[in-house]
Amino acid sequence: MRAIQITEFGGPEVLVPAELPDPVAGPGHLLVEVARAGVNYADTHQAENSYLREPRLPLVPGGEVVGTTGDGRRVVALVGTGGYAERAVAPVPLAWDVPAAIDDVTALGLLVQGASAWLLLRRSVHLAPGESVVVHAAAGGVGTLAVQLARAFGAGRIIATASSPQKRALALELGADAAVDAAEPELRDALVEANGGRRVDVVLEMTGGSVTDQSLRALAPFGRLAFYGMASRREPEPVPPAALLAHSATIAGMWLPHVFQLPGDVMGTALDELFGLASTGLLRVVAGGEYGLTEARRAHEDLRARRTTGKLVLDPSR
Amino acid sequence: MRAIQITEFGGPEVLVPAELPDPVAGPGHLLVEVARAGVNYADTHQAENSYLREPRLPLVPGGEVVGTTGDGRRVVALVGTGGYAERAVAPVPLAWDVPAAIDDVTALGLLVQGASAWLLLRRSVHLAPGESVVVHAAAGGVGTLAVQLARAFGAGRIIATASSPQKRALALELGADAAVDAAEPELRDALVEANGGRRVDVVLEMTGGSVTDQSLRALAPFGRLAFYGMASRREPEPVPPAALLAHSATIAGMWLPHVFQLPGDVMGTALDELFGLASTGLLRVVAGGEYGLTEARRAHEDLRARRTTGKLVLDPSR
Repeated sequence: MRAIQITEFGGPEVLVPAELPDPVAGPGHLLVEVARAGVNYADTHQAENSYLREPRLPLVPGGEVVGTTGDGRRVVALVGTGGYAERAVAPVPLAWDVPAAIDDVTALGLLVQGASAWLLLRRSVHLAPGESVVVHAAAGGVGTLAVQLARAFGAGRIIATASSPQKRALALELGADAAVDAAEPELRDALVEANGGRRVDVVLEMTGGSVTDQSLRALAPFGRLAFYGMASRREPEPVPPAALLAHSATIAGMWLPHVFQLPGDVMGTALDELFGLASTGLLRVVAGGEYGLTEARRAHEDLRARRTTGKLVLDPSR
Repeated sequence: MRAIQITEFGGPEVLVPAELPDPVAGPGHLLVEVARAGVNYADTHQAENSYLREPRLPLVPGGEVVGTTGDGRRVVALVGTGGYAERAVAPVPLAWDVPAAIDDVTALGLLVQGASAWLLLRRSVHLAPGESVVVHAAAGGVGTLAVQLARAFGAGRIIATASSPQKRALALELGADAAVDAAEPELRDALVEANGGRRVDVVLEMTGGSVTDQSLRALAPFGRLAFYGMASRREPEPVPPAALLAHSATIAGMWLPHVFQLPGDVMGTALDELFGLASTGLLRVVAGGEYGLTEARRAHEDLRARRTTGKLVLDPSR
């Protein structure tokens, strides 16, 4: 089968097309004929070996696929690795049936990125009705969904940040009340100004570096910043707990795979709600571009250069 | 009137009895004939000028009183400073009527410490039913209430820490399932062991230093540590946000006065629930000792030496 294989860690250039034997589904696993493979930020970390979980080489990257199983189910599935391929293997509990009203790109967009946005709002920051919310990288995969979900969950003022006028226009179109250039030198002040002069209740942050530092300083008392990624590869400043105490501020780390260590079927609950909202038109996955599987390198280049908006997918048939 | 006055900052020795003129209640304020004044950890910081809010000298310390107003109301009130006296002045919105079933010590215990425990569980960590909870300093003012409230709110396993066998026995009597010596050198491991080998969901922490550091490492994925004091005067290690991300861990600072910057009457809601639980016997304020007003110095000495348990009060009639 056609696949992308990494034999050494590095940048997008290590994503090389290869002809590999089909994977075999062992007990408790499903073989999925991949219709589309999702591309996530995590994949770029996987490729350069800067991810939280260390992969082994050689590696077929890609953590999520949508497709069909031998017994005719249409599923979206978390595969860990192996997604950038014509066929992939998923553990049975990590494959969910996709309602007919949900297209492939939407299903992929709701899986990792939708569930992330859901968990951030429901579990990391416990958004309350009327609260102000800053969504950084609001034109990205998680960001586009977080803006809409925050609205659906009753947020007050929603402030999006993004790096270009086009991305900011998209965030406003998706329901943000204000859009700020993430490169503002005085980002803390820009966020407060966008919130009508008041500090903000909630920040969803995946950029790192000074964006995190400045956003923490923009929090109102009892405000919460959820930190779920570091796309800039720059560490924020370490946070003294005494400073959090002095401002009644919260910082909440979130890494999606931990959801499977929670009791109950939290992921199933999230997907049910997300599929429901998408079926009724309250939630829209923004298609961010479809690449042939052999163009995976270019997909990563575009993602890392922050040229893309919304959900990127690979088509394994080309 | 009889009062305690601080003319220079320092340890308990600066708490000196003095004869002062009665305070005058300006517009929007109430004069309270003090029946009992509450003693809090914050007062010891106030005396040595290590508190978050800088006081001006000369100063009558003490932030909370219970007593009667000129028009016959029995109220518990937050006075900022001036509580260690026969008469004190409270802003009208910071005085709450005390139900007849609630005695003076209970009313004082529920005000700052009860509301703190309530806010920690409801707003800082959003305790969910079945979750494991570590309560540090569980024999203290907030701790004794936090153990009982966690139980009332449906916590799973409750693990108390305290510095003496007597204090640990009290924590067990109040409903904790296990009690650990807070001085355990491998505190992280001791907490996990007390939780049956599993990491914990929630930690309420007001000690600082290595207790905070070790407790953070004991958190399960999606676990939350609320940091609301630093009784040891030792700073915990600064926390890199990337480490919180890697463990889906949350650290939430909480300083009670910020509650008044929240929309709605959160403090009133908390007190209603606390008075209700205490009236029905589901919540008990542990009396920690009554001192004459002129013995304020000794009360601070006992509190700082960690010799006390439960709620300390001063009787201004002696």
